[in-house]
Amino acid sequence: MQCLVSENSIHLCNPHLEKMKEDILYHFALGTGTHDFPALFGDVKFVCVGGSPSRMKAFIAYIAEELGLGSSGGDYPNICAGTDRYAMYKVGPVLSVSHGMGIPSISIMLHELIKLLYHAKCSNITIIRIGTSGGIGLEPGSVVITRQSVDATFKPQFEQVVLGKTIIRSTNLDEELAKELLQCSKEINQFNTVIGNTMCTLDFYEGQGRLDGAICLYNEEEKLQYLKEAYDSGVRNIEMESSVFAAMCNLSGVRAAVVCVTLLNRLEGDQISSSHDILVEYQQRPQKLVGYFIKKSLGKV
Amino acid sequence: MQCLVSENSIHLCNPHLEKMKEDILYHFALGTGTHDFPALFGDVKFVCVGGSPSRMKAFIAYIAEELGLGSSGGDYPNICAGTDRYAMYKVGPVLSVSHGMGIPSISIMLHELIKLLYHAKCSNITIIRIGTSGGIGLEPGSVVITRQSVDATFKPQFEQVVLGKTIIRSTNLDEELAKELLQCSKEINQFNTVIGNTMCTLDFYEGQGRLDGAICLYNEEEKLQYLKEAYDSGVRNIEMESSVFAAMCNLSGVRAAVVCVTLLNRLEGDQISSSHDILVEYQQRPQKLVGYFIKKSLGKV
Repeated sequence: MQCLVSENSIHLCNPHLEKMKEDILYHFALGTGTHDFPALFGDVKFVCVGGSPSRMKAFIAYIAEELGLGSSGGDYPNICAGTDRYAMYKVGPVLSVSHGMGIPSISIMLHELIKLLYHAKCSNITIIRIGTSGGIGLEPGSVVITRQSVDATFKPQFEQVVLGKTIIRSTNLDEELAKELLQCSKEINQFNTVIGNTMCTLDFYEGQGRLDGAICLYNEEEKLQYLKEAYDSGVRNIEMESSVFAAMCNLSGVRAAVVCVTLLNRLEGDQISSSHDILVEYQQRPQKLVGYFIKKSLGKV
Repeated sequence: MQCLVSENSIHLCNPHLEKMKEDILYHFALGTGTHDFPALFGDVKFVCVGGSPSRMKAFIAYIAEELGLGSSGGDYPNICAGTDRYAMYKVGPVLSVSHGMGIPSISIMLHELIKLLYHAKCSNITIIRIGTSGGIGLEPGSVVITRQSVDATFKPQFEQVVLGKTIIRSTNLDEELAKELLQCSKEINQFNTVIGNTMCTLDFYEGQGRLDGAICLYNEEEKLQYLKEAYDSGVRNIEMESSVFAAMCNLSGVRAAVVCVTLLNRLEGDQISSSHDILVEYQQRPQKLVGYFIKKSLGKV
């Protein structure tokens, strides 16, 4: 492993980048030749990422209000307006970025985000994924802070294919950060929050044992057996991005956490059938928790 | 395999669906309890899918114009306006749907799309993915019609994890349809088009041998050796969705094709550095080709 550990604390595990005159972050529509990264992003300390662009826009408005940095018009421009692949918003030390759905989509975003933070000479960065998930054995609306991200066989590892060969990477997350987040949840005391393992799958339907996809070649008993095995191994929720998120943050030396709300209890069903208003309120819970954590970290609580 | 082969020609490989009173297509924000699928979608014959929502919106405006079905205001409402996960547009017999980036993202969309077409009782459907890709040994701007979608070891297969176990699915595409599309390209005679294999990867940077990601632990020689092996095996372009697209269309009995433009020649570099205008023109090529194919199929050429 040839990671460049520089004083700015982002480890850049790619010696080739040093030789490039310009770096185009294609999926952000940003580039070092056209944008002044240290000026634009040098003060970033917290990066929050989530699947949905509108949710990440809502988060920046929320955190701006919480930190007393709200813009007069209440509007925040999309820094990646030149593309519709991802959306990015910034207020003070907080960057909010969407990543779409699934490991490949968040992986493209993280490659470009880590390079962005490196080029901007950022230091002491904390990255938190705030997302939605299916819960196992938890009341819907519960929030899970990930202890370990595990694969579909409940192993804490991520298989990365490099030049056609499969290599295994660790999916450890920052234990201390997870505990700090749990403490924050206790302090705000508004919803159930647990620390548990998070299973990360490549598919939402067959990969998570759902009976309601276009293809399903197993029965309900096999599904429930699989979900119970997951529960017994320590899994409390299932989503589709945490493993590569943990692996890449690990390699890059960035403190990282995953905070997801559970939209349903998969032991009781597959369809997400709660009302729109209830789902909207659930989705605000990780935002509230992480918003409080950021305020507290900045000494504003 | 327990696929229901009904007269409507969509094979539904899930016996559980018949027992459900209502089906909520969560990521489309559509449901059989709230929307009349046969009325909304029953006349669909062509479905075009692509990563970017704005590109799929541009495609529906283009095809409306081509088919003489243009709306007076030139605007087309997003059928999935209740969510920002995917965007969907319709004009006459053509449905245009975005799928985001990567296998998991297109897989969620396809599960819900296949169920949508089934619930709508659609018949004789053709689905074409129009996308962007990295080329191997082709002049940038060339269009590749996929013969076979292959994995990172150049095998024509897709590994699907179901309840923690890996199963292998075929990634065959419709040979006749590929030939018809190639013939269309000859008739419009505006850009280079080839039939070739398409490599589908789970990662844009390390998975495709790029030297410009946040992580890169191999050298340029190893990269070029890998890309040359891919070329020698018949691969002409690399993207991130075709394998699961082919596998799911196969299982569902839907005629399918993949038509991608190459934005660069990967034997010559990794960064997508062409000007915005050139990239926009390249991205219109699959749209033009598939637009011509649809017109011809409808007897309008």
